[in-house]
Amino acid sequence: MSNQENIEGVRHSLAHLLAQTVKEMWPGSLNAIGPVIEDGFYTDFEMKGKLSEDDLPKIEEAMRAKLKEWTHFDKKEVTVDEAKEIFADNKYKLELIDEFAKESKILTVYTCGGFDDLCKGGHSDGLANIDPKSFKLTRTAGAYWRGDEKNIMLTRIYAVAFTTETELEEYLDRQELAKERDHRKLGKEMELFSFSDLVGPGLPLFTPRGTILRRLLKDLMRQAGIKNGSQEVEIPHIAKKDLYVTSGHAQKFTDELFEVESRDENGFNMKPVNCPHHIQIFMSKPRSYKELPVHYSEVTMQYRDEKPGQLMGLQRVRSITVDDGHIFLAKEQIMKVVADFVKIIEEVHTGVGIYGEHWVSLSLSDPKTPDAYIGTKEDWALAESMLKEASEANNLNAKPMEGEAALYGPKLDFVYYTVGGVETQLATIQLDFATPKRFGMKFINNRGEEETPVMVHRAILGSLERFMVILLERTNGWVPFWLAPEQVRVLTINDSVADYVEGITTILKDTLLMEPLKYNELRYSVDDRNESLGKKIKEATELKIPVQLIVGPKDKEAGQVSVRTKDGESKIKLEELKDFLLNLK
Amino acid sequence: MSNQENIEGVRHSLAHLLAQTVKEMWPGSLNAIGPVIEDGFYTDFEMKGKLSEDDLPKIEEAMRAKLKEWTHFDKKEVTVDEAKEIFADNKYKLELIDEFAKESKILTVYTCGGFDDLCKGGHSDGLANIDPKSFKLTRTAGAYWRGDEKNIMLTRIYAVAFTTETELEEYLDRQELAKERDHRKLGKEMELFSFSDLVGPGLPLFTPRGTILRRLLKDLMRQAGIKNGSQEVEIPHIAKKDLYVTSGHAQKFTDELFEVESRDENGFNMKPVNCPHHIQIFMSKPRSYKELPVHYSEVTMQYRDEKPGQLMGLQRVRSITVDDGHIFLAKEQIMKVVADFVKIIEEVHTGVGIYGEHWVSLSLSDPKTPDAYIGTKEDWALAESMLKEASEANNLNAKPMEGEAALYGPKLDFVYYTVGGVETQLATIQLDFATPKRFGMKFINNRGEEETPVMVHRAILGSLERFMVILLERTNGWVPFWLAPEQVRVLTINDSVADYVEGITTILKDTLLMEPLKYNELRYSVDDRNESLGKKIKEATELKIPVQLIVGPKDKEAGQVSVRTKDGESKIKLEELKDFLLNLK
Repeated sequence: MSNQENIEGVRHSLAHLLAQTVKEMWPGSLNAIGPVIEDGFYTDFEMKGKLSEDDLPKIEEAMRAKLKEWTHFDKKEVTVDEAKEIFADNKYKLELIDEFAKESKILTVYTCGGFDDLCKGGHSDGLANIDPKSFKLTRTAGAYWRGDEKNIMLTRIYAVAFTTETELEEYLDRQELAKERDHRKLGKEMELFSFSDLVGPGLPLFTPRGTILRRLLKDLMRQAGIKNGSQEVEIPHIAKKDLYVTSGHAQKFTDELFEVESRDENGFNMKPVNCPHHIQIFMSKPRSYKELPVHYSEVTMQYRDEKPGQLMGLQRVRSITVDDGHIFLAKEQIMKVVADFVKIIEEVHTGVGIYGEHWVSLSLSDPKTPDAYIGTKEDWALAESMLKEASEANNLNAKPMEGEAALYGPKLDFVYYTVGGVETQLATIQLDFATPKRFGMKFINNRGEEETPVMVHRAILGSLERFMVILLERTNGWVPFWLAPEQVRVLTINDSVADYVEGITTILKDTLLMEPLKYNELRYSVDDRNESLGKKIKEATELKIPVQLIVGPKDKEAGQVSVRTKDGESKIKLEELKDFLLNLK
Repeated sequence: MSNQENIEGVRHSLAHLLAQTVKEMWPGSLNAIGPVIEDGFYTDFEMKGKLSEDDLPKIEEAMRAKLKEWTHFDKKEVTVDEAKEIFADNKYKLELIDEFAKESKILTVYTCGGFDDLCKGGHSDGLANIDPKSFKLTRTAGAYWRGDEKNIMLTRIYAVAFTTETELEEYLDRQELAKERDHRKLGKEMELFSFSDLVGPGLPLFTPRGTILRRLLKDLMRQAGIKNGSQEVEIPHIAKKDLYVTSGHAQKFTDELFEVESRDENGFNMKPVNCPHHIQIFMSKPRSYKELPVHYSEVTMQYRDEKPGQLMGLQRVRSITVDDGHIFLAKEQIMKVVADFVKIIEEVHTGVGIYGEHWVSLSLSDPKTPDAYIGTKEDWALAESMLKEASEANNLNAKPMEGEAALYGPKLDFVYYTVGGVETQLATIQLDFATPKRFGMKFINNRGEEETPVMVHRAILGSLERFMVILLERTNGWVPFWLAPEQVRVLTINDSVADYVEGITTILKDTLLMEPLKYNELRYSVDDRNESLGKKIKEATELKIPVQLIVGPKDKEAGQVSVRTKDGESKIKLEELKDFLLNLK
């Protein structure tokens, strides 16, 4: 039994234990369902008497006291009638028995520590040997029986459970951190973005500071793209539906496609992807093998009609800003193009400070659902083997993941995690033999014949919104110095330093960053309001301004500034200030 | 009689003369209608015998010979029956007589040079004194009687006519130039943009060279905006319909609004403007008078569902890229904000090389249609008088234009011309007291009270697409040096100069432009293909590459390059090359 199956068995067993314990402590209460969920389990109760979150430690303690008795589960097969007799006093179990009876005449009852429960199995062997401190009841919530608001509301107790106390502590710490570093909270404090009821859900508005951060990322994408041989293009956000029928997106993503109505006879869609537009630019003139690879890219918003209930901050939006690019090339160029692009991903992810915190997915087709993809079997086999080879050649150590491919081909996906542990794909390299054929793309090869190009879909950061989530959460808002919307704020202690501040701003004005983004002028401000230093520091810190230069009469006299960063405070001579700033990461 | 009325009278009279002349030269032909149009007139004929464009000079000559006889028009009032008798042999006139008879029992017949025509009047006094070389028959075309394809096809003769020969020549030159400099032709030759049937009409795709030009303009907009105190923001391209109901755009621009269908219960629109989004950003937190003016801007695409028949190149598109900004301010700040923005317009328009070729429209409301606008009468009166004052204070010499205001307020519009003479609005400054009230915008003023801000809508270039039309046509594609997608191309005469070319590219790589756009790295390439110099020059010239550096063995020996620009060819020493490039306009 693998570790994962084992912990799920323990969680399942603990759900039984919780049921027994609550029923003993609140006699007459009825237990309903108690499934395993991510990181733990829950059990629903119709309570006899009041239960609050304050009771949870008491229940936990009682559960721990019983662990030793819970040595093993006894399985008993019963008929429907026998089951109804055992659970005669529990209307929830009776309803479930009637339902299970449709599938099978024989039901199972599991008993442990003298407690019977209707159950399909999948427990641990017993709970006698588990770490008593490896689980925790976390909260209560109201939950309708069977999730239907016409039914009675039950009391749900949530719990988390792991195999060791250390794992539990790590989990709880991570949850605490995720709450503290929630990008929605940071985004508000740092004034990066906002939402509006009138504009609508899933449609972020980027405020000035957020827009600066995004502009720097876009500039970096452009500079990295140029280095990689890419040319920037620009396309509108809609196209005739015909375009997506040709590409296959209309058939595959019907629910996510925004339809646009026009007085024109043409039906339009908001673009859910950019490849078909870029293909049209490639096809706008005849092409020769001498031009290949042709590489177009841009940072642009694409639109997907996500379900309202699934929208969440910048993690899941309807207007998605992608740094999207497409490389049109001859087959024999594939390995070099992929290798070069892997290098660009590594460089940029290092520049934004996240490289190394990822794993790479070799996202393959699902052999069980061949109809979910476009293109021939032979092309898929070749594309998948080439990407596998590329993974090895570039030491990506990619993990094969069946069923994770794109509509048109396999992918190498660079996957990161939010602080809360949500897997988030950023960079991607996708090999596509199918789409160029559907569009009838051609170039003249070196034998003077028409040939269909291959296509690589690629992104460096993927979605700027998702990247902002990863960046903000992992740094707690202290993004790399070059990316900070406001990099330096001068905080004056009083008015006597006005002339001295002018000397400082002259230095700041003259400081030009060249790494990783070229020609990046310093962004600074001066807070010389008649406010207390404490208030000024508090405001600058909430905005996560990485360098706060505190200037008072003593600093002026000594020809220095007091530099406050997230790592502490120090004094720097004015003549060293520029070098200090140029060397910040 | 004004000059304009006079020339229209002449054109009308010439249409009569054309009818008489053709009927005499092709006996049995019938003349149908002959209206005045922009720059001239046309007359439709049912021809007896064949007429081709080769006959036009002959007809012109015959017309000129008759001018002396056409001294004055005699007007005669006739009854319907009398008219029918006069035009008994012309079925077209008979049809018109029946129609006119519904309006009036008395019709008029005008006679000149012995030629009768059914006519409502509005001629010149006579044609004896006009310049015989001031008109020209330009072309023929087929035209259905009454524009209905179920009717017979008539032969239409087009003519242009002015008061002097010089005016005619100027007009013909301008037409020739407009054809030669058509931005659609230049855009294709210079590889700036393309259209795709699959993407749809009115939706340009910007190819790499066009995208570079646009990126430079966007960077200039950002730098000019920052100088003007603006902060960049970024918004999605859709919003709930509610947003546009609140702003009034939903009611006013129903036909031009693209509707977006979603599985969400909300109805969405593609944004036809950006002001309501920017207002939502302003309203995302409480505001104090200390922050004002708050100035947001961005270069973004907005969408209008233009009629398919009206779409034309980049002149009229559905995806419109605007450099749009909104300034939220207190009333007492208006005059300074307008004056500062006028200065920015002047600076930028000078930088892109068009300043001075415009006139300014003081676009006012139409007092006859008060319901076409939102806001109170008092606010409109104040706003209009303030913009008038601003025009005077800033020496704009704006011309009052009733009925040209925006939905919410009066405007100062900077109007330019395409080479073909089409008026094209670029920059604008719009004063709006109405919209902030509709959205319930507030700030806390210096007395601690809530106050509604005023709003200025402003653009520097207006639409990037329209600006590209003006820029390309007026320069014939030879855009200012700093804006050229490819600024320098080195053309080698043979392979013996390879090492010398390396020295040249080192200089090019090291050249950084700072005016009018800061940190603008030189864009250059080397054409060292094994092709003739003639072919290389032809290609570089068609792409309108402003500086072509021709390098042969003699140049290498002399330590120089041959510089080819649109103005001619010259030799430059290598050590002077950088300075030469830095000083180009």
